[in-house]
Amino acid sequence: MRTEADIIARLTQKIPSRIGAREAADVPLGIGDDAAVVRARSGRDWVVSTDSFIEGRHFLGRLHPPNAVGYKALARAVSDLAAMGATPRYFLLTLALPQRRAGNWLDDFACGMGGAARMFRMRLIGGDVSRNQHVAAAITVIGVAPRQPVLTRRGGRPGDCIYVTGHLGAAETGLEILRREGRRALRSNLYSIQRHLHPVPRLAIGSWLAEKGVASAAMDLSDGLSTDLARLCAASRVGAVIHAAALPAGSGERLGIRRSPPRGEREAELRRALDGGEDYELMFTVPLRKASRVPTHFHGVPITRIGELTSRRAILLETNGRTRPLPARGWEHFARSR
Amino acid sequence: MRTEADIIARLTQKIPSRIGAREAADVPLGIGDDAAVVRARSGRDWVVSTDSFIEGRHFLGRLHPPNAVGYKALARAVSDLAAMGATPRYFLLTLALPQRRAGNWLDDFACGMGGAARMFRMRLIGGDVSRNQHVAAAITVIGVAPRQPVLTRRGGRPGDCIYVTGHLGAAETGLEILRREGRRALRSNLYSIQRHLHPVPRLAIGSWLAEKGVASAAMDLSDGLSTDLARLCAASRVGAVIHAAALPAGSGERLGIRRSPPRGEREAELRRALDGGEDYELMFTVPLRKASRVPTHFHGVPITRIGELTSRRAILLETNGRTRPLPARGWEHFARSR
Repeated sequence: MRTEADIIARLTQKIPSRIGAREAADVPLGIGDDAAVVRARSGRDWVVSTDSFIEGRHFLGRLHPPNAVGYKALARAVSDLAAMGATPRYFLLTLALPQRRAGNWLDDFACGMGGAARMFRMRLIGGDVSRNQHVAAAITVIGVAPRQPVLTRRGGRPGDCIYVTGHLGAAETGLEILRREGRRALRSNLYSIQRHLHPVPRLAIGSWLAEKGVASAAMDLSDGLSTDLARLCAASRVGAVIHAAALPAGSGERLGIRRSPPRGEREAELRRALDGGEDYELMFTVPLRKASRVPTHFHGVPITRIGELTSRRAILLETNGRTRPLPARGWEHFARSR
Repeated sequence: MRTEADIIARLTQKIPSRIGAREAADVPLGIGDDAAVVRARSGRDWVVSTDSFIEGRHFLGRLHPPNAVGYKALARAVSDLAAMGATPRYFLLTLALPQRRAGNWLDDFACGMGGAARMFRMRLIGGDVSRNQHVAAAITVIGVAPRQPVLTRRGGRPGDCIYVTGHLGAAETGLEILRREGRRALRSNLYSIQRHLHPVPRLAIGSWLAEKGVASAAMDLSDGLSTDLARLCAASRVGAVIHAAALPAGSGERLGIRRSPPRGEREAELRRALDGGEDYELMFTVPLRKASRVPTHFHGVPITRIGELTSRRAILLETNGRTRPLPARGWEHFARSR
């Protein structure tokens, strides 16, 4: 039987958590006590967000490799920091899991999470483990940002241009393939499977946007464009028009190069771009007068203008010159199961 | 069917989360965006801790009133801040729950958590809801502390006196009664049931200890004295002797006045004081030369000296002049079920 101490040891061996002499000025007390202590530098704010990752809801135990589960649990929380233009620093993990997952599965999970933590230069500073019938993780991420400006969802104004990074719908395609073909699809190294298992938070673009003061509003796309756009519009008290032809869809099977697929496939691709979840790309809005400052690529990631905010508070999709309402059909955390 | 937005609305209506003009300097951005933003004042550190509260592990859906579940989920996380001498400020909540708990149960849960938040003067600044077969909450609490000193588990030295606040074992007695008598025990208003359902984090004593620099080490008693003392001793690299006769046991049925019970009952009471979990009292150590500065009561809560730290790294219980090893038999999060 594994004990709590054994589980904590397995996690901290593989996830960066040690506070060296160099870091002690910023983290006077790390993991292992009742709480951790972090010290702010003047002129900087803390940016804090929390996310859960639950077996049967956010991942499937029989399909998803534990390494990817550990990576993604942290990466999706970090995506919220990217959307604020913040730089990741620390995280806390509560992990509930069954006895049968406390051995090799846990080691692989910790390796994946440790890899993500190194990639994002983050340190685990606190946590809590308990037993449960299935795996349930909750992660709180802490980042820093210069005092002004932080990117919010609220600042969009009518006339602002809407942009997205990367391609939309790739993660959804990856999930569909994984569901259809099972674990053998993992060996195929398809772009869409990679996008589903190892999303890359757009930290560099988020920082750039916050630093340059170009964007009026921003958020990350976790639940699908149609649902997340409705949230940004509600927060900014505006509407929007999205141009179907402009969407950077493409399942990415050809590494992001757009295809000319037959009609049925094209419609499925459009639906995935509009409603597919878990792309963890950024969506942001830019006042028209600043639009020329937005590059077409940033560190190799395409940035695409897909529409405009409007004063009329409706969300519309324009196809071949005709507009129709764009209902929010992305991921609804509480309604469906995965 | 409840939606995510409906659940978030129910929570934020009952739990303080609105950032008024007065608070905006400290919390430039509260709940509702991708992340929250908090601003530190110079000379203060942030103290951060996370805890989970899971149905079937930490509470029983058929026994525990949702109001108490909401209260206790926050209170036990706050107890970790008390143990550091920090002042609570903000918290984030991830809540996974089944559809059938998303109505009245959720309202009562939110009322209980809202009451706790008001009591501890905390604000909800972030969260995440998702669906699950049973209720699973994870809470991250953020407090502030003056830069020096923060109370840790590490600072205990051989010869230091060991103190505890309040009475030990009352919460365990309350749980036993609740298990035995079912929900009708809730109407009895017994002290031990109150202690089990509504533990009070020792924030004032924690602050006082940190401010006065009296304590060498401190932690909260969440898993039982025998288990938590072993943790403090391991962190401080010392051993300890506990004097059985000195323990402030007492189920508290007579509001904390000690009884002279028959032998069998006395032994059960001793066992609960040593191994009973969830008292959320503080345990702290004080160098002998400062012991005279520790009061016998603080704001009505008794403070009792129960033993000493030793250089020999064993944990012993002294009864009538004889010592024997004191095994860690408190709550082991991963092994047992409640």
